[in-house]
Amino acid sequence: MKKALAIDVGGTKIYNTIIDESGSIISDIEKHSTPKNYNEILNIFRSIIKKYENEVDVVAFSTCGAVNNANNKILGSTGNIAKEYPLTDFSSLSTKPVFLENDANCAAWAEYQIGASKGCANSVMLTLGTGVGGGIIVDGKLLKGKNGAAGEMHFKMRTDKHRKCTCGSWDCFEIYCSGTGLKLTGQEISKKTDITTYDIIEGKESGDAVMTEIFNRWQNDILEGLIGLANIFDPDVIVLSGSMAQFVDTEFLTCAVNKEIVTTPTKVVKAAAGNYSGMIGAALLAFGKDF
Amino acid sequence: MKKALAIDVGGTKIYNTIIDESGSIISDIEKHSTPKNYNEILNIFRSIIKKYENEVDVVAFSTCGAVNNANNKILGSTGNIAKEYPLTDFSSLSTKPVFLENDANCAAWAEYQIGASKGCANSVMLTLGTGVGGGIIVDGKLLKGKNGAAGEMHFKMRTDKHRKCTCGSWDCFEIYCSGTGLKLTGQEISKKTDITTYDIIEGKESGDAVMTEIFNRWQNDILEGLIGLANIFDPDVIVLSGSMAQFVDTEFLTCAVNKEIVTTPTKVVKAAAGNYSGMIGAALLAFGKDF
Repeated sequence: MKKALAIDVGGTKIYNTIIDESGSIISDIEKHSTPKNYNEILNIFRSIIKKYENEVDVVAFSTCGAVNNANNKILGSTGNIAKEYPLTDFSSLSTKPVFLENDANCAAWAEYQIGASKGCANSVMLTLGTGVGGGIIVDGKLLKGKNGAAGEMHFKMRTDKHRKCTCGSWDCFEIYCSGTGLKLTGQEISKKTDITTYDIIEGKESGDAVMTEIFNRWQNDILEGLIGLANIFDPDVIVLSGSMAQFVDTEFLTCAVNKEIVTTPTKVVKAAAGNYSGMIGAALLAFGKDF
Repeated sequence: MKKALAIDVGGTKIYNTIIDESGSIISDIEKHSTPKNYNEILNIFRSIIKKYENEVDVVAFSTCGAVNNANNKILGSTGNIAKEYPLTDFSSLSTKPVFLENDANCAAWAEYQIGASKGCANSVMLTLGTGVGGGIIVDGKLLKGKNGAAGEMHFKMRTDKHRKCTCGSWDCFEIYCSGTGLKLTGQEISKKTDITTYDIIEGKESGDAVMTEIFNRWQNDILEGLIGLANIFDPDVIVLSGSMAQFVDTEFLTCAVNKEIVTTPTKVVKAAAGNYSGMIGAALLAFGKDF
């Protein structure tokens, strides 16, 4: 059975492990802080690869940022990671074949192969965390677009320039439906600038009326976005992953989405491929390539 | 060279002609009113087919409504057309192979093969008419979704239940960005209930400040929708067709979209495959099938 050295690159942490063709993690998960400096990032990649490349058939990166259609470079800068990061041609980092894909796309692929959307050729996956990531599968293939940047969940929730988004534009789904979005909605409704997502979730669970209103507004914004995505993609399933997904009511969302769409019934479910779905998806995608 | 009998079925009119493999219309365009009654609709289909089926290799329908992935039936009821219309198995209507696809999908395909998105494997086409239709091409294939209903332009422009959409839900792109949407925006801004799209377009062109404000609000709503679609699909091109598309400023839209998106630059252009692009696309799609 083939093996992949899987490496997950995030804005704050880098993880690595070895994954086999069944999607099983077959070695320890190693963890590193993501350095601010470009050469230090490359040095971490090089030391991981040097240590493991002889044990594996392929090196598979799951990374923040949009990845090109040749799966060897990222496009443009991404969050707080070193600005030179897009310069890297990842294929030069190992003597083995190297495969690179966006982390949300990798996670969506893991869900499709071994998780919540297993066997569903048409799915939309949203990672609800500090931001929102998107991975879309159309007819059993990742939606990449002309340059690999597709699947960005920056569509508008309103058109009156109410809330500035991290992308530089206004009122995107991400800035309402992420953890950051929940906090901002909390600030708007409660008028408290120091409110946290923890306050809101705890308050809602203990029956506080204002916190419940905030949570429901946030969950309703998610619903409104899912209605649009279901009408655009007619997906078998919409998968919610990420740290904030645990709090949403997928039964409510499934029912409410199906009441509003003009396409055929879909379902909203939580992700099931686990915390390391990015690395698993990267490995499974890499095995599917002819190197 | 193969020939198709192409039939376009709309809520008010049915057209038919013969189209060859190059996408050329090689006979007269015939026009019929769409009857309210189901059997009368079928009788029109039967008489057209009886007259021409011996001259052609395939019968290709472009129809209002979502079409299934087997391309022989429509899903659910569609606008003001007979409720029984979805019962029809179109393959039973001719001794020749029959192909059926949604009209906006057909038009998008015609643009991809011979029109404004020729050679672009990733495109989004919007028909701005009384309503809004959508046809999306991903990696050179029509986006159909699990059951064929994908590409519906019913995503939200706001989330406060301001304007009821024809689909039964609220505040969809269609109800702001169609001709109907322009009229409703005109009513809201001018406070005149009898305002027409003609008043708005004429007024804007002669420099009336209120009519210009209405038009710009409408065009800006289109812009906001296009930003979301560009971020979701990373398309080569966004094609605007339909009777309302002639009024929009595609240079302005291209520039404004590219300023706001996180994906790679795209362009907004007007359709170029002509008024009968639905029939042309249906024929070209039909030729591509192995019958």
